[in-house]
Amino acid sequence: MRAAIFRGPGTVEIGDRPDPVIQEPTDAIVRVVLSCVCGSDLWYFRGQSPHAVGSIGHEFIGVVEQIGSQVQGISPGDLVVAPFLYSDLTCPHCRNGSVISCVRGGGFGNGDADGGQCQAVRVPLAGATLVPVPGSGHSEQTLRSLLALSDVMSTGHHAAVSAGVSKGDTVAVVGDGAVGLCAVLAAARLGAERIIALSRHPHRQELARAFGATDIVAARGAEAEQTVLDLTGRIGVNAALECVGTEQSIATAFAIARPGSTLGIVGVPHGQVPFATTFFRNVGWRGGPAPARLYIPDLMTDVLAGTIDPGRVFDHETDLEHVADAYRAMDERRAIKSMIRVGSL
Amino acid sequence: MRAAIFRGPGTVEIGDRPDPVIQEPTDAIVRVVLSCVCGSDLWYFRGQSPHAVGSIGHEFIGVVEQIGSQVQGISPGDLVVAPFLYSDLTCPHCRNGSVISCVRGGGFGNGDADGGQCQAVRVPLAGATLVPVPGSGHSEQTLRSLLALSDVMSTGHHAAVSAGVSKGDTVAVVGDGAVGLCAVLAAARLGAERIIALSRHPHRQELARAFGATDIVAARGAEAEQTVLDLTGRIGVNAALECVGTEQSIATAFAIARPGSTLGIVGVPHGQVPFATTFFRNVGWRGGPAPARLYIPDLMTDVLAGTIDPGRVFDHETDLEHVADAYRAMDERRAIKSMIRVGSL
Repeated sequence: MRAAIFRGPGTVEIGDRPDPVIQEPTDAIVRVVLSCVCGSDLWYFRGQSPHAVGSIGHEFIGVVEQIGSQVQGISPGDLVVAPFLYSDLTCPHCRNGSVISCVRGGGFGNGDADGGQCQAVRVPLAGATLVPVPGSGHSEQTLRSLLALSDVMSTGHHAAVSAGVSKGDTVAVVGDGAVGLCAVLAAARLGAERIIALSRHPHRQELARAFGATDIVAARGAEAEQTVLDLTGRIGVNAALECVGTEQSIATAFAIARPGSTLGIVGVPHGQVPFATTFFRNVGWRGGPAPARLYIPDLMTDVLAGTIDPGRVFDHETDLEHVADAYRAMDERRAIKSMIRVGSL
Repeated sequence: MRAAIFRGPGTVEIGDRPDPVIQEPTDAIVRVVLSCVCGSDLWYFRGQSPHAVGSIGHEFIGVVEQIGSQVQGISPGDLVVAPFLYSDLTCPHCRNGSVISCVRGGGFGNGDADGGQCQAVRVPLAGATLVPVPGSGHSEQTLRSLLALSDVMSTGHHAAVSAGVSKGDTVAVVGDGAVGLCAVLAAARLGAERIIALSRHPHRQELARAFGATDIVAARGAEAEQTVLDLTGRIGVNAALECVGTEQSIATAFAIARPGSTLGIVGVPHGQVPFATTFFRNVGWRGGPAPARLYIPDLMTDVLAGTIDPGRVFDHETDLEHVADAYRAMDERRAIKSMIRVGSL
């Protein structure tokens, strides 16, 4: 089959890999319909995080082709959404809601299971992991939004959930990448009354507004902090959602969070965190990799009802043969998020 | 009047200060009955944190002597507990539960308002700040426990509340100082089923058990982490309460916290925090200075009912004239916490 192959920093190219086969009775083979490039794939591409040579990608939707003898809940022919990690839903961590720490779980690509940027994927623990999509004849727009549930929308939602966003809140979203934009959408979905998006790019500002942002702050650093504090009567926001992970963005998120609030953080933290000041204001933080598997069913209901359309973050498209361009478009910031059209329904 | 006076690192001595007088119509003058030395006073004593020369101390109970014209809710003759910070209960932060960030608030001692280790204190925003104690003829044991509400028990409770301790939980408390011991008591009060106290000192282990600890771990660092993980089937605890604030104790608390849990942190954080690992397990943190004013009424109900007795943390006593010894006893770790008997009811 054809598959994206990570050769090393700066090089992801199309190539051939063996067709996947059932190895465990809990496996399924999924024929990929849509895949995409994640912000974290870019770290590998840029050499900022290590990645094994070989299969890459962890976001995809597709059609079940074959299932192992112990797989329940999905059948060949089902359209399914794959969360970016697989999990068994039965271990102590899964039962406690931490599917990302499943003792039998793992991720797609990066030397472990197959990556998702290819024609077919062997999915471990498939009955627990894959979420079947009800109905048929879904529109292109719906399929794109279902793909977004695989990671980016679930991650934005996790930022909002971790920060405890609730009805009537004033929320700030730090980061206007695809995750940040989805965090805006998630905050609006949870009933936030005012959503301040920190964004410097007109194209992204526009999508932030479409997703529910009521205010845009184009400044950065200390100037951004002062602007947000001014917008909130010098009180700060009920929930600051950190969707970048740099030292500056984390510092900004803490600075604009009102005393007693909890940051929702989904950008992998780099650098140091200014605890000396945050502690004395009782500002905490929660977050990490999203338990996408647990979020997908509810979010899918809203996608199928047409009340959210996170697929709008995909503003660049290639086919699988041109996967290298999907990476370049994001690396050069020409795209918010690149979608890869692999197969048809 | 007689008062403890901070002269500089290593020197707190008894001396004379002017009798306090009403300066604002919202002030009250409180004659101190019991005061004590806080772990944070020790940082000043040891030169680890800066402190203004002069009045010191921020934990006391006493009798109201005089009130300003705008003070409501307390009357001369009332026995009152003072939280370690004063606040107005009406500013946006107070109304949101963050009384420690009150825009008109502040702390006792350290160059701002009077300290509490003296014969009488001018209490700003007294009607909002001071909590009157119902009834009369309280026992010595009750008075000691009421004094503990001023800071140490409220702070231990804050660790438990911040970590979301609830009925049936397995909790670990890192730190066997007075705050850590109160955190054990607070966790038990909130219904924790299993409480693992990390403590190396037999005297403190004994009090931890009396407060509700079911397991004692005497090891430190990596050995302590492995022991707690073994005790919890390699899962980790539902709630780790960090009551020290050193780099090692924070690392230990994170390491023993189960995925998806939230540390309750009340030890002022020093050093760096191991986010690279905690983020990927979705372990967050919340905490800071306790909103003691909001906790005192409920905790006081339990003290007066005799169901909790946090005053047992006071295992050393001096009169005000020997306040220097109160500091030395804690500095030399001869005492868990030093009480200072200032006046009578």
